[in-house]
Amino acid sequence: MTTDAKILSALRANPDGVSGAQLAEQLAISRAAVWARMDELRKVGYDIEASPHFGYKLVSSPDALHADDLLARLGNTKVVGRDIQVFEQTTSTNDVVERLARDGVKEGAVVFAESQTKGRGRLGRKWSSPTHKGLWLSVLLRPDLRPQETTQLTVISATALRRAIKTVTGLSADIKWPNDLLLGGKKVAGILTEMSAETDRVRHVIIGIGVDVNQDASDLPGELRPIATSLKMESGDEISRAELATEVLRELDTDYARIGTGKFPEVADEWEAACVTIGRNVTVHIGNRKFRGRAESLDDDGALLVRTEHGHLERITGGDVILEK
Amino acid sequence: MTTDAKILSALRANPDGVSGAQLAEQLAISRAAVWARMDELRKVGYDIEASPHFGYKLVSSPDALHADDLLARLGNTKVVGRDIQVFEQTTSTNDVVERLARDGVKEGAVVFAESQTKGRGRLGRKWSSPTHKGLWLSVLLRPDLRPQETTQLTVISATALRRAIKTVTGLSADIKWPNDLLLGGKKVAGILTEMSAETDRVRHVIIGIGVDVNQDASDLPGELRPIATSLKMESGDEISRAELATEVLRELDTDYARIGTGKFPEVADEWEAACVTIGRNVTVHIGNRKFRGRAESLDDDGALLVRTEHGHLERITGGDVILEK
Repeated sequence: MTTDAKILSALRANPDGVSGAQLAEQLAISRAAVWARMDELRKVGYDIEASPHFGYKLVSSPDALHADDLLARLGNTKVVGRDIQVFEQTTSTNDVVERLARDGVKEGAVVFAESQTKGRGRLGRKWSSPTHKGLWLSVLLRPDLRPQETTQLTVISATALRRAIKTVTGLSADIKWPNDLLLGGKKVAGILTEMSAETDRVRHVIIGIGVDVNQDASDLPGELRPIATSLKMESGDEISRAELATEVLRELDTDYARIGTGKFPEVADEWEAACVTIGRNVTVHIGNRKFRGRAESLDDDGALLVRTEHGHLERITGGDVILEK
Repeated sequence: MTTDAKILSALRANPDGVSGAQLAEQLAISRAAVWARMDELRKVGYDIEASPHFGYKLVSSPDALHADDLLARLGNTKVVGRDIQVFEQTTSTNDVVERLARDGVKEGAVVFAESQTKGRGRLGRKWSSPTHKGLWLSVLLRPDLRPQETTQLTVISATALRRAIKTVTGLSADIKWPNDLLLGGKKVAGILTEMSAETDRVRHVIIGIGVDVNQDASDLPGELRPIATSLKMESGDEISRAELATEVLRELDTDYARIGTGKFPEVADEWEAACVTIGRNVTVHIGNRKFRGRAESLDDDGALLVRTEHGHLERITGGDVILEK
């Protein structure tokens, strides 16, 4: 952790205040250096009170994301969040992580962007990413999986994201196969899993996560208003994006470890229980093909099994699956 | 085609010579410009005679690869070889094509390198690429396939490469699953298929092909001498790398079209007929696991089906398969 991350961590651990002398000793820096760091933190929006009586006290944190703050909040994880970077603007966080991956960066690195100029969803679709309103992040993983098994990572990302949203907002999101989270039937978050692989071996996977957090209805593009929502619109409250971000990384770290220890079936059960697609009549669009059926279950690789009108069982790994009313 | 490619094409079409006047008219440039281009071509190693009697005549071509010459030799193809670049040295041709792919270059682009500083084979293994001795090339494809179907592209690359070697040298190579070509039981060529994909959709595939062409035994690293060979060592003749390169691209273009028209099963039959792995006793190494069995056949996705000593049928998509004597 950086010095700033350690300071924020100490301030959060001591809500009634911590003395400059104590901080200086913990961090092995001078009291003047502590004072200087506090001043820098104030400049980026942390409201830190100081008095000879109680020392330094964190009154409030800014809404903007800071890598040091996220590292301080996250504490120790096994893999996810070992390195965190925050950009004010990128083309797409998946693009940034792709470059890190090719430069040999270790798995667990996370990139956040406060806005994206070319945010994208599945099938190359555009993703709206208005500044400071949502969470747009990408995580680099290097799992020992074959290409067709990477659907497992989409599944664990959905369960992790769902638990994080529940913890921070109290809201229970539904999962729509393969990668959307819904609140009241409207999309609130999406996951884009991209990989680089040899035919039989994954080299790296990038999990892109987008969550609509503090948008008001007026922040949504007109065409999305009937089908999209935000955590703020559903809960009525402004949400701490840093808190949600931390929780998402912590939960993802937990579920990624579950894959490594052969517990993916447990995650899959959790996923299925939250999935609104299973048991529903659906219309499936794949390329130019279109058919109706009933979504029955998920197979071991995360594919959706759909019983068609004609009684065949179809294994769906892509395309669009639209829920019928 | 560039002017140089058109000139080389015309010279090859007229082995007894073609007049400067005729070339100037065909190319819509002055006779002085034709003369200047001939001079440039001579500088890079083309032996072009000129006389008032027969005009210009191509006596011999250099061994070095030239993009214009390869385009001229190749003529029209459907996809593969629409754009060709030759580098004197790269890290790995797959790396160069990866960057082209991300910049949105169309499928069919081909990159050759006269030498590679970081040539690689399957599973991240090093690949020896001594200057001007072999063919090291990568082809960019954007097929409408799912990640697990990309083994089809390794299969068509092997059949295409095998036919090209047969045409140019008369030698009949064996195929060793999943991606090696053997002559007399020794490796002469390999194929590395890499992809960038979403979970359910391939974005692009890079087919890397390495062929040991004109190496002598003394050019092979010591540890490879018992297991590797070259076309020259097997045929006794120096091989025209440009001729072989052209033939490989032409055959790959043919087989890629066969995938697009649903004829992959035909290619798979051709592959199986040339495969020395099928019907053999093998030892399979996958990660830390090792077992023996008999390779029975290939499935629709190009996986190898191995009947173990214990009678189970295992579907092999990766790892190492070693042929027993």
